[in-house]
Amino acid sequence: MFEFTLKKNDGLARRGNIKTAHGVIETPVFMPVGTLATVKAMTPEALHATGAQIILGNTYHLMLRPTAEIVEDMGGLHKFMNWDKPILTDSGGFQIMSLSNLRKITEDGVEFRSHISGAKHMLTPEKSVEIQHMLNSTITMVFDECPQYPIERYKCRESMELSMRWAQRSRDAFVHRQGYGQFGIVQGGVYEDLRKQSSEELQSIGFEGYAIGGLAVGEGQETMFRVLDFTIPTITQDKPRYLMGVGKPTDIIGAVARGVDMFDCVLPTRSGRNGQAYTWEGVVNIRNAKYKTDRSKLSERCKCPACSNYTKAYLHHLVKCNEILGAMLLTWHNTHFYQDLTKEIRISIERCEFNNFVIRHRNLEQKL
Amino acid sequence: MFEFTLKKNDGLARRGNIKTAHGVIETPVFMPVGTLATVKAMTPEALHATGAQIILGNTYHLMLRPTAEIVEDMGGLHKFMNWDKPILTDSGGFQIMSLSNLRKITEDGVEFRSHISGAKHMLTPEKSVEIQHMLNSTITMVFDECPQYPIERYKCRESMELSMRWAQRSRDAFVHRQGYGQFGIVQGGVYEDLRKQSSEELQSIGFEGYAIGGLAVGEGQETMFRVLDFTIPTITQDKPRYLMGVGKPTDIIGAVARGVDMFDCVLPTRSGRNGQAYTWEGVVNIRNAKYKTDRSKLSERCKCPACSNYTKAYLHHLVKCNEILGAMLLTWHNTHFYQDLTKEIRISIERCEFNNFVIRHRNLEQKL
Repeated sequence: MFEFTLKKNDGLARRGNIKTAHGVIETPVFMPVGTLATVKAMTPEALHATGAQIILGNTYHLMLRPTAEIVEDMGGLHKFMNWDKPILTDSGGFQIMSLSNLRKITEDGVEFRSHISGAKHMLTPEKSVEIQHMLNSTITMVFDECPQYPIERYKCRESMELSMRWAQRSRDAFVHRQGYGQFGIVQGGVYEDLRKQSSEELQSIGFEGYAIGGLAVGEGQETMFRVLDFTIPTITQDKPRYLMGVGKPTDIIGAVARGVDMFDCVLPTRSGRNGQAYTWEGVVNIRNAKYKTDRSKLSERCKCPACSNYTKAYLHHLVKCNEILGAMLLTWHNTHFYQDLTKEIRISIERCEFNNFVIRHRNLEQKL
Repeated sequence: MFEFTLKKNDGLARRGNIKTAHGVIETPVFMPVGTLATVKAMTPEALHATGAQIILGNTYHLMLRPTAEIVEDMGGLHKFMNWDKPILTDSGGFQIMSLSNLRKITEDGVEFRSHISGAKHMLTPEKSVEIQHMLNSTITMVFDECPQYPIERYKCRESMELSMRWAQRSRDAFVHRQGYGQFGIVQGGVYEDLRKQSSEELQSIGFEGYAIGGLAVGEGQETMFRVLDFTIPTITQDKPRYLMGVGKPTDIIGAVARGVDMFDCVLPTRSGRNGQAYTWEGVVNIRNAKYKTDRSKLSERCKCPACSNYTKAYLHHLVKCNEILGAMLLTWHNTHFYQDLTKEIRISIERCEFNNFVIRHRNLEQKL
């Protein structure tokens, strides 16, 4: 149960906020991914400094290491990792599909083997929701099945319908607390009628927010936007909408333009560790030999420590030498950039200038 | 040319300072190692916060990556890596012996192959000093030959005598500047007369400071202390004395008790990356399963961020998962501890209580 306030509409783009037990989230918002109770290569202090308002934790990873029992015993995920703002946890479904071995899906749930120890585990809607409760997650996600892409229509419907039954069981298992919420996940692949059916079934159960799942799995931006175009209108105006696992800067801008409020993606942190920087000017692959003696900043417009204190030549050197500081600085930069990006999006919606913003930032992914 | 002031003696232990072009160094001092223009896993801001006064850079590593030419072109090592306090650079001799391939030692210098690219390089006393000048090193080291340990007496003498000829050539090549200095390196293995001969020859050349090289190479603490016992008295009182590559906390305390002023070692940073923490209470191997649910701080006495904000259970989790934040926090802690340790040493000498300090801290390396 938490309050979502829609403060402004600009076309389909929305400016709102969510009042949670761990503070207010101004939307549209980007959530950095903190898989294993840490946003990789960043201290929570650095994360705060970027303007991050909420982070995402991964149920699958945390249930294996350090285990939900230990996190609960340590006072919950916030306390364990020293992050006092909101945390959203996924349900584990997506990682089971992408990481674990020997999955066996039944009506009851999924049996799988840990990609770490090989040990056998079972995750059901009830178990996933219980684990997220033990983590003290601010926003719990329903347990769903994440089908591969592409998927035939009849298989996609079967999978979606299983996910809808699991959504009901997830809701039944959810412990309601003031300032905490649970989101349903709309499935149905690229099929309009299936998306509509999924959306309606979830809303008849009733959640604090609605996520769009099963996208950003290889379908491409155009298809993703098309699916959003017919899915978003089926979702109520008065709850937050979360596009899972998205994405590149232009993905986010395009999705906001279609009415999405929340995003998460490993891209800024993973790219940072791989020497790729997102900037207002475009994408910098800092490994490129042309930066060897480049005295300029990574981005003139960015105020993060990597841009304030170092040259491209130094960052190039660090990344080429696989120095941890290279991963630290580029992760900081990318996380800072994603927060700047969503802040600018929020401001432009408040000023009813979002359309201009979209036009001005068509080239955010050009290679520099 | 820089000023060394001896402020206090307590037994053989000394409290002094060195006035350099990049600020004052209070001694005894520990220099964190910043091999490749970065103290691994730390930002310069974090390094400042630990109280670090001077860091060490490695000529061998920097000449290969990014090259001395690029560092010079970028305005020197301080500017390149955003560290404005003093930097001491070694001469490259030690790393050539320990890392590179196909070394060929002649009177002129050492020909070797890079451990990175396999490319052939030549390092001579003149070249090493020139590179350190290009790096804008605050304290330049003479180029020396680092013999293996153990080494027969006649080989040790030959090696030492070569190093003394190289010391003269290093001094001849050194560009004198106000606030910059060059240190000679006393060699001679574990042989008292050779150490004495080396020490006298260096002092007849004349340097801004004197290092003791060829220790901490496997001879053990007892032998090292014995060599210091007969070597230190051969070195003038009125210059700083630097024990290279040392060491564990009790190594440092024992060497200060014998009159050493400066230290460097990879131990705090390397151990940090390996999950080992040095504390006032002893050594914590945070990977140990007993810390899995340990709610206590790494060290109750330490004020570093790792100790202030996290439990042992969380640090255990990070290190077990190979999370970069684990390396970051433990490196920060160890670096902070080594700075605290040397600060406490300085205070105890000022108060003429150093002997008490030695007695109280005999167990700094006990396993917790």
